[in-house]
Amino acid sequence: MTMNDEPLSHFRPAQGPGDWAEVPVHAYKQEAGVPFKDITRRVLFSSPELAGELRYFEMAPGGYSTLERHDHVHAVLILRGRGHCLVGSEVRAVAPNDLVYIPSMTWHQFRATEGEPLGFLCLVNAERDKPQLPTPEERAALERDPAIAKFLAE
Amino acid sequence: MTMNDEPLSHFRPAQGPGDWAEVPVHAYKQEAGVPFKDITRRVLFSSPELAGELRYFEMAPGGYSTLERHDHVHAVLILRGRGHCLVGSEVRAVAPNDLVYIPSMTWHQFRATEGEPLGFLCLVNAERDKPQLPTPEERAALERDPAIAKFLAE
Repeated sequence: MTMNDEPLSHFRPAQGPGDWAEVPVHAYKQEAGVPFKDITRRVLFSSPELAGELRYFEMAPGGYSTLERHDHVHAVLILRGRGHCLVGSEVRAVAPNDLVYIPSMTWHQFRATEGEPLGFLCLVNAERDKPQLPTPEERAALERDPAIAKFLAE
Repeated sequence: MTMNDEPLSHFRPAQGPGDWAEVPVHAYKQEAGVPFKDITRRVLFSSPELAGELRYFEMAPGGYSTLERHDHVHAVLILRGRGHCLVGSEVRAVAPNDLVYIPSMTWHQFRATEGEPLGFLCLVNAERDKPQLPTPEERAALERDPAIAKFLAE
């Protein structure tokens, strides 16, 4: 969990979509062996006064987040670019301003499949559990749906 | 406080910036006698699983939110349009993707002063206190700063 001790600046202007001078870029994951590609993480708002934390994730074209699930939920708003998203058993194209809700213990992944970046805001509880990766059997079960198999292979 | 009992749809596509078919528009304030102009409120994410709540506010050109303060903090990202924002003793122009943090007990107001709408995301704790309005003395104290007086008169 990332929690800033310093008070946040009142105003942090954007230099462009997904680009803020005062918002450092973090590694997407700390754990070794977790699959992902060409994705960065920025923490926009995290303070002791906020029960939620707002992050910004951006994938380069062809990049993807980790296929995972967890107890905590994700509340997502697409901020820039285009791509596809898996939530449970459904794959959908996503575009700016679309809302995506990922319920508890639901497999999910974002992919920048449209030859452009995909950037999204993600709201989570500040207190949350660690993600789980699919076992080979769980991944095989997902891939029995041709639309999901195609999505995961892109 | 708005808290949905129904499970959220996994995907809610946008019809345009600040426009979602499945997101109802709410009255900005329920209380009588609270000053504001040409502003709407949409609740994008509010569920028992989320400690935070993500709302979208939009002002028509010339519209403004209530000048207020409260114990809870606001974490804001400008989503569309342009305008100005007062936080504490500072007035700043704001544009899409800019981040604004409003600390506890800090006077604040948003105004669509640039001849176009101003729409922003606002993250708050689901559990929060009621806003306070300035007394005439508190408003007069703010107006002693010419930049704030100009902002409040626009």
